[in-house]
Amino acid sequence: MEVPPPEDNAEGDQKRKRMSVGLYVSCPPNIKESVDKTLEYGYHFMVTQLTHPNYTRDINDNNPAPIGRTDRVMRSSDWSRLVVAQITPSLDLDSEVEHIRDHSKSIFAQELAFASHLGIPALWITLTKPDNVQLARALYEKTVSGLSFSVWVNIPMTHPSRYSPLSEHEYDTWDWWNEFRTYCNYDKRLGLVLDLCDIKHLLLYNELKRWIGEPVKAIVIPTSYFLINQHGKPVLSRLHQDIIKKFMSLDVQYIIKNDTECDLSLYVRYLSFLGKKLYVRDTMTEFVQGFEDFLQNPLQPLTEHLETNIYEIFEKDGVKYNTYYNAILKAVQSLPVDRVPVVMVVGAGRGPLVQAVLNVSITLDRKLKVYAVEKNPFAINTLVHRCKTEWADQVTLIKEDMRSYQPPEQADILVSELLGSFGDNELSPECLDGAQRFLKRTGITIPQSYTSYLAPLQSTKIFNEIRHNRPLDKTLQFCYETPYIAHLANFYQIAPPQPLFNFTHPNWSEKINNQRYKKLVFQVEQNCLLTGFVGYFDTILYKDVKLSIHPDSHTTDMVSWFPIVFPLENPVYVEEGKTIEISFWRTESNEKVWYEWCLHSPVKTEIMNSNGRSYYLRKH
Amino acid sequence: MEVPPPEDNAEGDQKRKRMSVGLYVSCPPNIKESVDKTLEYGYHFMVTQLTHPNYTRDINDNNPAPIGRTDRVMRSSDWSRLVVAQITPSLDLDSEVEHIRDHSKSIFAQELAFASHLGIPALWITLTKPDNVQLARALYEKTVSGLSFSVWVNIPMTHPSRYSPLSEHEYDTWDWWNEFRTYCNYDKRLGLVLDLCDIKHLLLYNELKRWIGEPVKAIVIPTSYFLINQHGKPVLSRLHQDIIKKFMSLDVQYIIKNDTECDLSLYVRYLSFLGKKLYVRDTMTEFVQGFEDFLQNPLQPLTEHLETNIYEIFEKDGVKYNTYYNAILKAVQSLPVDRVPVVMVVGAGRGPLVQAVLNVSITLDRKLKVYAVEKNPFAINTLVHRCKTEWADQVTLIKEDMRSYQPPEQADILVSELLGSFGDNELSPECLDGAQRFLKRTGITIPQSYTSYLAPLQSTKIFNEIRHNRPLDKTLQFCYETPYIAHLANFYQIAPPQPLFNFTHPNWSEKINNQRYKKLVFQVEQNCLLTGFVGYFDTILYKDVKLSIHPDSHTTDMVSWFPIVFPLENPVYVEEGKTIEISFWRTESNEKVWYEWCLHSPVKTEIMNSNGRSYYLRKH
Repeated sequence: MEVPPPEDNAEGDQKRKRMSVGLYVSCPPNIKESVDKTLEYGYHFMVTQLTHPNYTRDINDNNPAPIGRTDRVMRSSDWSRLVVAQITPSLDLDSEVEHIRDHSKSIFAQELAFASHLGIPALWITLTKPDNVQLARALYEKTVSGLSFSVWVNIPMTHPSRYSPLSEHEYDTWDWWNEFRTYCNYDKRLGLVLDLCDIKHLLLYNELKRWIGEPVKAIVIPTSYFLINQHGKPVLSRLHQDIIKKFMSLDVQYIIKNDTECDLSLYVRYLSFLGKKLYVRDTMTEFVQGFEDFLQNPLQPLTEHLETNIYEIFEKDGVKYNTYYNAILKAVQSLPVDRVPVVMVVGAGRGPLVQAVLNVSITLDRKLKVYAVEKNPFAINTLVHRCKTEWADQVTLIKEDMRSYQPPEQADILVSELLGSFGDNELSPECLDGAQRFLKRTGITIPQSYTSYLAPLQSTKIFNEIRHNRPLDKTLQFCYETPYIAHLANFYQIAPPQPLFNFTHPNWSEKINNQRYKKLVFQVEQNCLLTGFVGYFDTILYKDVKLSIHPDSHTTDMVSWFPIVFPLENPVYVEEGKTIEISFWRTESNEKVWYEWCLHSPVKTEIMNSNGRSYYLRKH
Repeated sequence: MEVPPPEDNAEGDQKRKRMSVGLYVSCPPNIKESVDKTLEYGYHFMVTQLTHPNYTRDINDNNPAPIGRTDRVMRSSDWSRLVVAQITPSLDLDSEVEHIRDHSKSIFAQELAFASHLGIPALWITLTKPDNVQLARALYEKTVSGLSFSVWVNIPMTHPSRYSPLSEHEYDTWDWWNEFRTYCNYDKRLGLVLDLCDIKHLLLYNELKRWIGEPVKAIVIPTSYFLINQHGKPVLSRLHQDIIKKFMSLDVQYIIKNDTECDLSLYVRYLSFLGKKLYVRDTMTEFVQGFEDFLQNPLQPLTEHLETNIYEIFEKDGVKYNTYYNAILKAVQSLPVDRVPVVMVVGAGRGPLVQAVLNVSITLDRKLKVYAVEKNPFAINTLVHRCKTEWADQVTLIKEDMRSYQPPEQADILVSELLGSFGDNELSPECLDGAQRFLKRTGITIPQSYTSYLAPLQSTKIFNEIRHNRPLDKTLQFCYETPYIAHLANFYQIAPPQPLFNFTHPNWSEKINNQRYKKLVFQVEQNCLLTGFVGYFDTILYKDVKLSIHPDSHTTDMVSWFPIVFPLENPVYVEEGKTIEISFWRTESNEKVWYEWCLHSPVKTEIMNSNGRSYYLRKH
């Protein structure tokens, strides 16, 4: 079990996605008028060249001439909200001609400084070819010293060369971007602006998923991509709509690039309509609103008492407790009818599983002897109250650690909910091994077994979240050697998850060993950036009654668990066709249990979290 | 000049102060009903005992009994928003009787844990006597390991013993508080709840001001303090209103304690009315909204170019530029009428002082030769544009540092606005010494002189802001050796400001020395906690035309400068009648200028910022 987001995070109108739409106007004669006009059409911002190309500029500082538009033509609050500024597109800092390179570099530096002076929110840079190391250098120099704005790197979703049998190279623009941002150390101020592909040059589904894993800030849609419907209004094809729908899980904006004559207000209205039409609002979407890619530390319920609001959130997951109810029902039905079955709930909390057991008793009209074992004094406080007021003293309360409790009799069924996002990561194995002392040898545990899964992950978002949220008293190494719970949104799962560790209960082996080791090998289908691994689990509660957060079998509408992420200290570029190989350990000492992991391929890394130095689970 | 807050920080309804009012209900039989009733009356929250005294509690963990109210009687979001929980008032952790001490400590620990479990926003502890070190210890132990709630320490504003000729001691409750929070290392989760003094036992004005310097979270008002007006409604006396008005500069809440029979809704309505009646909304109040006690680093305009939004904010201070206009007018009038005066604006920015000079020219109908010297290329960009479009080429633009510029002629008047919150702290002396090369020996500088002032400061708010906002790459020492610009709200100025350093221009001395040293001695009128010093300045622009941020002579409605704060590394307790002695240096090397400071009395401290190791102003 993991801490889900608080309940009150929902925002007003959830039934639609607010679509922020900008208009691209390359060089308006009067920027103020053009911004006003853009807003009148209904757009939210304008993209335009920072300096008007008609102005020739003198790089010599001693003979200044105005470099395009003076700041006072608009209020600073307009500059800072309404204008995304494009760097002069003809600059070529990576030219092979030295004087072009030098001149471009000087103008670029001047434009960066001017953008800073104006206080614009984002600067737009277009990459038109591979190898942009000089441009990256000039930019990174400024990001290090502290840029006040974001940088939007513009490239096509698919390069035309991918579809031309005549072209010398087959360019993958993702590689251009990946090289560029790698030079800039994955700086979080760098975002992507993707030109939507045209209908003849659609990208592969896998490529689209890889883009979803990038910090995409905007999608550029030329007006020529719109079809005209029977009412004479511009609309996008189903294929384009599908692409836009995919990006809706991110906070993407849209930019209309006008290359036809038309009423520009129609496009922004249409996109606003798409925000309503395409937005899917299910239980999970609603639940995670505002918590996308937000990192939480895994709970340690064994050694730290849970609090009221956490119990309350757990108890709201009706899907989970209904599934438990079904499992308990089937388990009770499997027992001989000639005596009263003993059911023990270990880790009863405020009683949701106790309630499920009592509901089974009512459904089957069969008496059950129920024990509730709980160690948190404040949860006990609530259980005492419920016993009296709701449960008519049918339940025996035991305020003790399940590992030390000495029961007066043995149980037929042992029910628990001790699972974390990675199955065993809240010490369910250790707890149940301890508790099975009071289970009959023929007894049933619910859950019966659970399995963890691991998949390679690309998410510079999570990578940046980790390094930028370092607590003052922790080292960076500590932060990268710790797993996090997160609802992943801005990510690409590089390959399908594979099973890692399995635990089965009860475990009557003479010597129980909960240490584990496994090596996994993943095939990589396209170039990507490995930033860590994502973990899931599934569990068999009883026979065919299951719960799962594995993406391919996720229990519908169950919100109790988010995935777990095991980071790497440095992102690793992986080429198409290569393999990712990882070793993963579950290790223990007398005091603690911890995981370690390391890469074998495509590169070897240090063994992360050696000896549980950064992250571990206390047994006591 | 300093960075003021952005313009859009204003909140909706500025004409009133929202008054958050709670109701004290010691032991309601049913907490849920009591909360509902409290909200119905119009209150925003309820203060009540965490555990009902009717419940006897067993400290022994193995025999649990409910400890008062179970968590499920309310939603966790209600617990966390609506209930301030009082610790059982009969506890005495500082009793001289050992078993009472021990029992109190156990119950206290249990109540802290229960508060944590419930997720309440604040815990209420009452101090009833001096010497609360055991209570402080028990609490501090928990704050170190991370309390999830605030702690409200309740004491009277004045102790009855102050007014009783019979009492053995004359208690100052501020001392109880100060000792308590000192033991707890000034933890920012500790706040104060002050019982309003009754009308016969009013506190001194100076004592009130000292309370304003403390983290006061709430004021308790018994219903018996209310008078009945001619409409039969409860109202507060003028004297009580005056006290409440003083606390309005802080974010204080109010708690009604019901000790008479009456309609409880009337009190919350009356306080809401006071929020409208007593709230003063002047230019400064409006300007600083949301920026109270917010720390900013001083600008370094000599080495870092200012940006559009900063110029724009400066230019909005009409009071400042009108005063400059008056100074320039008088200076021009003092010049012989037989020739065209040369006026140079050094550091012209986007031109507000140039405009003031041109306005003088129009007013006097007198031709002026105007030069504008500016080094920021983007400000020059704007000036070029204004010269053409607004100023009909009356102004000669010079894009150069004023310290290196070689002028074609000498000026009659040199106008600048290079002053910081501490007068010389943006290197105005060094800049003007360089620029006076192009001033005639008979010429006038505007400003003519400026003086800095220093006063001892009590503000644990600022002390905590500094240590909790330490950037990852800085040491704590670095942060305490750096001055900050801040609009002070939650502070107490221990003694009146005294003049520190003075600079006069032009300075025709053969060898100019801008280094300074002074020792200041302040008398302390009541016990207090010294956390640093606050700095101000005033300036004579020309003859009787002045600007000031000194609290006793502050130019009305001028918002361009906030005070400057020089911190100390550790708060120092100072007794009534003692002196505070400080040495203060302005020092320079070839590359930089910096301040150093140290205390002589009541204790000697290390010399802060030795050799400018943490904070300095670059000359180049």
